Order: sequence, then C-alpha cells, then structure tokens
Amino acid sequence: MPKPAVSRFPVPAISKMPDDIRARILAVQEKSGFVPNVFLALAHRPDEFRAFFAYHDALMEKDGGLTKAEREMIVVATSSANQCHYCVVAHGAILRIRARNPLIADQVAINYRKADLTARQRAMLDFALKVATSSHEIADDDLAALRKHGFTEDEIWDIAAISAFFALSNRMANVTNMRPNDEFYMLGRTPKA
Amino acid sequence: MPKPAVSRFPVPAISKMPDDIRARILAVQEKSGFVPNVFLALAHRPDEFRAFFAYHDALMEKDGGLTKAEREMIVVATSSANQCHYCVVAHGAILRIRARNPLIADQVAINYRKADLTARQRAMLDFALKVATSSHEIADDDLAALRKHGFTEDEIWDIAAISAFFALSNRMANVTNMRPNDEFYMLGRTPKA
Amino acid sequence: MPKPAVSRFPVPAISKMPDDIRARILAVQEKSGFVPNVFLALAHRPDEFRAFFAYHDALMEKDGGLTKAEREMIVVATSSANQCHYCVVAHGAILRIRARNPLIADQVAINYRKADLTARQRAMLDFALKVATSSHEIADDDLAALRKHGFTEDEIWDIAAISAFFALSNRMANVTNMRPNDEFYMLGRTPKA
Amino acid sequence: MPKPAVSRFPVPAISKMPDDIRARILAVQEKSGFVPNVFLALAHRPDEFRAFFAYHDALMEKDGGLTKAEREMIVVATSSANQCHYCVVAHGAILRIRARNPLIADQVAINYRKADLTARQRAMLDFALKVATSSHEIADDDLAALRKHGFTEDEIWDIAAISAFFALSNRMANVTNMRPNDEFYMLGRTPKA
Amino acid sequence: MPKPAVSRFPVPAISKMPDDIRARILAVQEKSGFVPNVFLALAHRPDEFRAFFAYHDALMEKDGGLTKAEREMIVVATSSANQCHYCVVAHGAILRIRARNPLIADQVAINYRKADLTARQRAMLDFALKVATSSHEIADDDLAALRKHGFTEDEIWDIAAISAFFALSNRMANVTNMRPNDEFYMLGRTPKA
Amino acid sequence: MPKPAVSRFPVPAISKMPDDIRARILAVQEKSGFVPNVFLALAHRPDEFRAFFAYHDALMEKDGGLTKAEREMIVVATSSANQCHYCVVAHGAILRIRARNPLIADQVAINYRKADLTARQRAMLDFALKVATSSHEIADDDLAALRKHGFTEDEIWDIAAISAFFALSNRMANVTNMRPNDEFYMLGRTPKA
Repeated sequence: MPKPAVSRFPVPAISKMPDDIRARILAVQEKSGFVPNVFLALAHRPDEFRAFFAYHDALMEKDGGLTKAEREMIVVATSSANQCHYCVVAHGAILRIRARNPLIADQVAINYRKADLTARQRAMLDFALKVATSSHEIADDDLAALRKHGFTEDEIWDIAAISAFFALSNRMANVTNMRPNDEFYMLGRTPKA
Repeated sequence: MPKPAVSRFPVPAISKMPDDIRARILAVQEKSGFVPNVFLALAHRPDEFRAFFAYHDALMEKDGGLTKAEREMIVVATSSANQCHYCVVAHGAILRIRARNPLIADQVAINYRKADLTARQRAMLDFALKVATSSHEIADDDLAALRKHGFTEDEIWDIAAISAFFALSNRMANVTNMRPNDEFYMLGRTPKA
Repeated sequence: MPKPAVSRFPVPAISKMPDDIRARILAVQEKSGFVPNVFLALAHRPDEFRAFFAYHDALMEKDGGLTKAEREMIVVATSSANQCHYCVVAHGAILRIRARNPLIADQVAINYRKADLTARQRAMLDFALKVATSSHEIADDDLAALRKHGFTEDEIWDIAAISAFFALSNRMANVTNMRPNDEFYMLGRTPKA
Repeated sequence: MPKPAVSRFPVPAISKMPDDIRARILAVQEKSGFVPNVFLALAHRPDEFRAFFAYHDALMEKDGGLTKAEREMIVVATSSANQCHYCVVAHGAILRIRARNPLIADQVAINYRKADLTARQRAMLDFALKVATSSHEIADDDLAALRKHGFTEDEIWDIAAISAFFALSNRMANVTNMRPNDEFYMLGRTPKA
Repeated sequence: MPKPAVSRFPVPAISKMPDDIRARILAVQEKSGFVPNVFLALAHRPDEFRAFFAYHDALMEKDGGLTKAEREMIVVATSSANQCHYCVVAHGAILRIRARNPLIADQVAINYRKADLTARQRAMLDFALKVATSSHEIADDDLAALRKHGFTEDEIWDIAAISAFFALSNRMANVTNMRPNDEFYMLGRTPKA
Repeated sequence: MPKPAVSRFPVPAISKMPDDIRARILAVQEKSGFVPNVFLALAHRPDEFRAFFAYHDALMEKDGGLTKAEREMIVVATSSANQCHYCVVAHGAILRIRARNPLIADQVAINYRKADLTARQRAMLDFALKVATSSHEIADDDLAALRKHGFTEDEIWDIAAISAFFALSNRMANVTNMRPNDEFYMLGRTPKA
C-alpha cells in the first residue's frame, strides 16, 4: 500500500523551502526524531507558515500562566469538538507527555466532562469549548466563573486565544486533509515515551 | 454617556506600544482617518498582534487570485455566521468600498443566498461557510464543485484560509467584546465614501 | 442589468389592485416617497394582504406600552435569526429612524447581545428570540424574568405577538424571495434621513 | 381538581366581548357543540383576533387548490415540529374528520415520513417543514420539486402561507399556554365522530 | 389497497417461529386480542428477540418503584423525541390504559412540558429526555434534582434504563419501518377501552 | 489518590453475584487478564445484565456477515458521536486487536471520514451514524446505498442493530459514569498487545 498523502494540496520538498522554514523544520526533526506533517503541509504557503507558527509559539511556548499541559488540554478538547484528526492525534501526544499521564488525552478528547481533571481545569475547558462553539454568547458571567477558580485576566485571554487559534488550525487541517504522523499515536503512552 | 469600551481587556496607550506596532497603527490612521479598534484591542499582546496582522496581510493583501472584494465577502459571510459584531461592521465597510456597491455588505451578512452575487461567488461562499461551520465534513466533492466554477487550487486554499483565519478573528473579537468604530457604519454607503 | 424581481411570484400592477389595497399603497408612497416591496409582493393575494396589514398595524402602530423603537428591535433581532433579507433591511431602516440612532439596527441584527441596549431591552430581546426559536420551552420563569424588568402583562403579550407575527412575515419574505427596496439601506443613517 | 386554565393571559367573558367576536364564537359553538379555546384565548386582543381569523379563513377555507385535508396535514406536521400542544390536538381532530381517516393525524404528527401519504403529499410536507424550520434556505430547486408533483404556483404559495401562518399561531399558543379542549382528542376517531 | 407491510425486513410466519417465541406471541394475542407488530418484526432474529423482550420485561414489568404509567410516560416522551411512529402509537395506548387517562399520551407525545403532570413527573421526564438526547452531559446535578423530588437511586436507574432501552427500540423501529397495528390508535381513549 | 469509582451506582462484590453472572465474569477475567468494568457496573441489576450481554453476544459474536473488526468500527464511531468514554476506550482496544491495526480506533473515533477505510466501510459507518443520530429520517435510499456496496439485507440489519444496541449501551455508560479500565488504553497499540 502506498504511503497516504500528507495533504490534499502540494507539499514542497524540504530542500526547496525558504531557508528559515527549512531551518525550523530541521530543528524540529532533530528534537523529535521526525517531521510533524503540519510543517510540511503548511510550508506550501511560506508567509502563512511563518505567521501560523509565530502565533502558535506566542500562545503555546510562552512562560508563566497556564501550564503547558493545560494549554494542550484546551487544544485537544476543542479540536475534538471540531473533529480534527490531525490536532487530536498530534496534540494528544504532546498532552500525554506534558501531563506525564498516558490516559488523559483520550479522556479529554472523548468527553472532557468525564476526564480526570481538577474543578479548575474543568472550568477552563467549559470556557474553551464555549469559545470554540458559540463565542457570540460569551458574557461577563463566563469570565466571572473563571475568576472564581483563580484564573487571572491574562490566563483568561490565553484560554480564549488558544481556543481561537485552534479554530483556525483545525479548519486548515480539515480542509487540507492533513494526516498525523503515525509516530504520534504511541508517544507518551508508556512511562519513558 | 461615556464612550463605550473598545475591549473587555486592557488597551495600551499608543505612546506605550512597541515601535513597530505604533508605526503600523499610525500608518493606518494616516490612511483611514481613524484607528480601527482591532489594532488597539490586540495591541494588548504584541507578539500575537504581530502574528495576527502578518497572517491577515498574507491572506487579504496578496496579489492575484480572488479579488479583494471577494475576500471581503468571505469575511462578512462567515463573520455573520459567527455573529461577530466587530468583523461584520468593519469588513462590511471594506466590502462596500472594494466592491463599489453600497448594498452588498448587508445582503451578504443577512443571507448570502439572497445577495446579488454571481453563481461563482455563491459557490465560493457555500464553501467558505462549510469551512466555518462543519469543516470536518469537507470532502473531495466540495473542492470539485469549486473547480467547476473555475477556481484554481490556490484560490480554493485562499477561500479556506480566509474562512479559517476569521474563525480565529471572530472568536477573539467576541471574547474581548471588541467594539467597531462608529466610522465603519457609514463607510462606502454613498458614491464618494 | 435588469432590475431584480420584487418577488418570485406574480406582482400585480398597482392600477389593477382592489381599491382599498391601492389606496393604502398610494398613501404609503405619499408618505415614504416609494412603495416598499412588501406591499407589492403581498398584493398578489388581496385577502391575505388585508389580514397581514391589519395584524401588523394592531401590533406595531397601537399606542402605549413598548416604544415604537423597541417594537422594531424585536422585528430586527428575530428577523435576523430567521435570516430574512427583506425584514432586516426594511425594519432596520425603521428602527434607525424611530430610535434616532444610526448604529442600532446593525448592532441588533448582528448580535443583539453586543448592542447598545438597556438591561430591560436586552431581556425583551432574549424573550423575543426564545419565542422565535424555541417557543415550546417558554415557561413561567421566562415571564417572571420580564416582570422583574417592569414589563406588564400587556407588554409581554406584545413582545411575544410581534415575534410571532414576524415568524410568519419572515417565512413569507423568504419563500417569495422578497427584495427590499434599495432606498431602505440608507434611511436613518444620517441625522436628517 | 379545578379545570385547567385556557390561557396564561386573561380570558374575557363571552358576554363582554365585542359583538362581532361574540357572534363568531357563538356560531362556532352552534356548529361544533363547544367553543374551541383558541377563540377564547385570542379574544383578549380583539384587533389581533380579527386579523388572525381573517388570515386563517383566507388560507384554510378558500375554495380550490389543495384539499382541506391536505391543508390540515400541513398544520399538523408543522405544529408538531414546533411542539404546539393546542394546534396538534385541535387540527389533528379536524384532519381526521376532513380526511375521513382516524389514523392519519397521529401518523403525520409523529413522523410524517412514515404516514400513509401519496408521494405528492409527502413532497408537500417536505416543503412545508422546510418553510417552518429553515425558510432562509428555500431555493428555486424546492419549488421545482413541487412542480414535478403537479403543484401549481398558487398551491405552492398556499403551502408556504399555511406553514408561515401556523408559525405565528404555534408561537402564540405556546406562549399563552393555550389548552386544547378535551373534546378534540376523540373527534374523528370513530366512523361517526 | 393492500395491507401495509409490518416491516421493511422479512417477517416469519408464526407457525415457523421457534417454540418459545411462538408461545410468547400466542400469549400476547390471547391477552390483547391481536399480535402487536413489534413481535412479528423482531421475530426475524430469534436471539435478538429473546434478549429484547427479556430486557423490556426487566424494566417495564418489574414490581415496585415507578408506577407502570410513569414508565410508559418515559417511553412516550423519549420515543416522540426520536420520532418513532411505532413506539409513540403503541406505548401511547398502554399509557392511556395504565394511567386511566385518555388525554395523557397525546399530551406527553406533543410537548410533555404542557402535559397534566405532577412536578415530580415533569422532573422525571426532563431527566429521561436528557438521557435520550445528550447523555454525555449528565452530571451529578441532574441526579440531585431527581432526589429532591424523592426519587430513590433505584428509580433513577430505572428512568435512565427505560430511556436507554427505548433509544435502542426506537432506532430498530425506525430502521425496520415498523408499523403499529391499527388497533392501538383507539385503545384507552374511552372509559371501557 | 484513591482509585476512581467504576460507577456512580453501587457495584456488587463478585462473591455476592448470582452464579451465572459470576461465572461469566470469571471467564472474562481468565481470558483478558482483568474484569472490564462494564461487567461490574451492570451486575448491579442481574436481569438487565443478562439481557444486555445476551443481546451483545447475538450481535457481536455471531458468525458470518460483517467482520468482527467492522462491527467494532460501528461501535467506536457511534459511541464517539455519543461521547461515551467507556465504549470508545474499551471498544477502541478491541477494534485495534480485531483489525490488527494500532491506528484505526483513534481515526474512527475522531472523524471516521478521515480514517483509513474502504469505500464500503465508509458507507457502513455513514449508515450507522444516521441510525445513531437521526433514525427517523432513514429511508429506502439509505438501504439502497448500502446494497450498492454489496451489503446483504442481513448485514444491513446488523449495522442498524449494532448502532441501536450501543445507543442503549452508551446512555447507560454515560449515566452510570462507567469508567473504562486503565488496561484498555494500551491494548492493541503494539504488535504483540
């Protein structure tokens, strides 16, 4: 069986990519051992690639506030609501690793209301899902509910912004038919992974 | 009555913004005669601001492919589906100007199926709306329908990417309670506007 | 380009209409400077025309209770939920005029939760929308919420009846493909309009 | 147990009603043996009462076109979609009588797709339901589908207008908590009823 | 007109059925005067037939807890939400008989919120409907609401299990196009029925 | 941290269960190395337990027709639509084992339209999902679409019945808050698992 396509749209050869994009991809490959397909699929459009990852890093890599595991919970929960194959599989792997919990990603993806979460994390995901599915109904009460759980204004923005950014990401992955690398499925499922 | 707030979150003074952001805002003010509130609201987070407008410009300002009016139609139609006050008002104004048509923005916002559009534009919006509301169901048939109307692969990506980018934008505007400037409501409604 | 049709169904010449209908239409034309297309489209069925406008006037023109601007807010908000091109454009114009507010109609149409309304008006529209979209779930609590804002029993009936009447009106406009007159788009947008 | 209320709003005594309304009610009582509660509940607002029944009669009592049983099918199917207790019970009774079929009303109310209908009647109800639930999506194809089954333009208007009128009626019945008379439940269930 | 089919799938002759199934069917016929079509339609698959009725009897025939009328209310309300022709008609008849109330089945089927129920029964149906339509959102609060009305843990399980069992039953009836016997429509509508 | 509960309802000790139920559970434990929690949670009600597993086995264990992997695909896809934590995790494991494919369960759970399936399997799941979510709209065309892919009448019944049975199962798991055993998450993810 031929290897399934990474994207419904053209995927450039790494050797033909602009230098900055190639450099980023090689760095990821060095660190992870493989090139996540999102880099290949989005490299079709260099300017959008750069903006996408700049946005991604501003939300997912910055210090302080939400833990990195919590940020990934938001990604997995909202990507599941959008039925995004790529994001649930790839960020599910990252969530397992960051939370050091091999069960949490599947739990959050299937029904976060039943996942092993704190009440604070549950409130965080309730809000993230509302941003994902009915942001026009967000009102002061929704923010007040988060403050009761100790979230700061900055963290509230972060929750919203991560949910909003993956609203974009999920749609691009769904339209391009972006395929997650097989490697992601097993990452973080065993103590050492 | 006090002037309503631009955002539910803090808005920095223009004088306190990083140089590149202040420069961009002053350039927009110079050109438009006022500072659209999206610039003020998003300046709360400089890194996200930069990525947001880099993404925006890559999709909305590039040459060739969809006309600029068509890109704005996508913004207005999908932002209306998301009930985004800011984007429908602000991009409705831009659509009127770019299409040189004072009626088109309201038509597209209320029910694009009844708007004065070509069959090709109608197909474009059918696809954009599917990306906005049920991207997990996008299939080969959806792309084939666009090709029948003469859309290229690059244009299909553009339609999807604009719809996806405003999925992000609408959610941020809804969560921040971003308020459109009063100036937008009248722009493009009269021949000279 | 030929002038777009007023309706998908036959439209009688004014000269061929029954006397009472012609008289009403000429009076409206005298007052407004043009004949709103709803009169032409519905004149296809004289008996229904008479009942429609008798009902309309009983709800929209009677003295006391809700202000005329508030009644138009109900029309615009519920017609937007039904994506009725004709009613949002035509009653948006009337709302701007009656409220002496050039921004209010677009705000109410896009997302009334973000419009510049009093808490009382917001509660009025919450109820009107529930009547429009899920009247089978209306319960005593919904009426109690209105009474807290000072609405009388008569006003509560009015809110419901206006929402219900435009449930009819929106459906007829959508099925007949009723086209709003171009004149409506600009009415009430400038101080003198 | 006290007799349940006819309406959540005040119901005038027949003796206190305006002459024309009292006359109509007494005529109905003479013919049916009881006063259907819709007359009592709506008499609270004489002008709306007159417009309501004028509209009703224009659609439901006129000669030619759809049979009277078919008109009642439209009422029952759309009122069931709106979960309108009064209209399903009262018009279900009328449908049984007009169709001389004791089973048809329950079938149409529960799932008209499984009812003992002709293909033509099924197409009629598909259209009526679309008018009731998503009229903004009505397009030329919907009308073409009806023409294939032999419906005239006048009949198509009638289907739409009946569905639209009961969109109003169902909402008023739901908001007023209008209670159907016990007599309706058994009407038309036996050969002589 | 030929008699409409009982099922879209083959229906075995009673004489060809396994002994235990034939015995059960003859016993029902003896008691009811006719063979409800569900027995004929499901006899196509003897093993599933046996499990189905064992499950049914465990929930609907056991002593104690919910009254038999209350159990039928759950069936009628949830089957109506699933638009199951067979179950609403057949269990509507049983409900009328068990509640000795000729009106209750139609009320519960059309809109249980308007039916002549106690507050306790209303809470029971609110929960049953949530199980039927969005069981993934069931939370501790839902069970607490039932306890406030005096429901025991065992009764709460029963409500859920009946709703869940008819989720299965409704789907089988809808897929097989199972037709209710004409006899059901009139059962329990008159004092002696 | 204490071990999370298996069910929201009481769970009997294995030693106190009726003999036939204990025997079945011990046999499963012998074969799998652990007792899947569904057996413990449902043992609270022995009669329902027996009917449940008799039904389950009649559909999932019988010879011929759909492959066992295909039956599990139906379970995983429909259980995901119902957001059933237990069934997606437990049957996901069984699907991986029966299909000898470590990726297939996550793919089918997240968005079966993107999974590595044959066109025939895709049609099977389209039908199963329609049974799960809108069985009242199942029509002859749906069955015809399956026959085109070579499905027999018996297999069509099987698809429907499996989807219907897990409509029940998902609701019971959601209401009881049934927790999947940790063991399931890793089963079938590696060649030997």
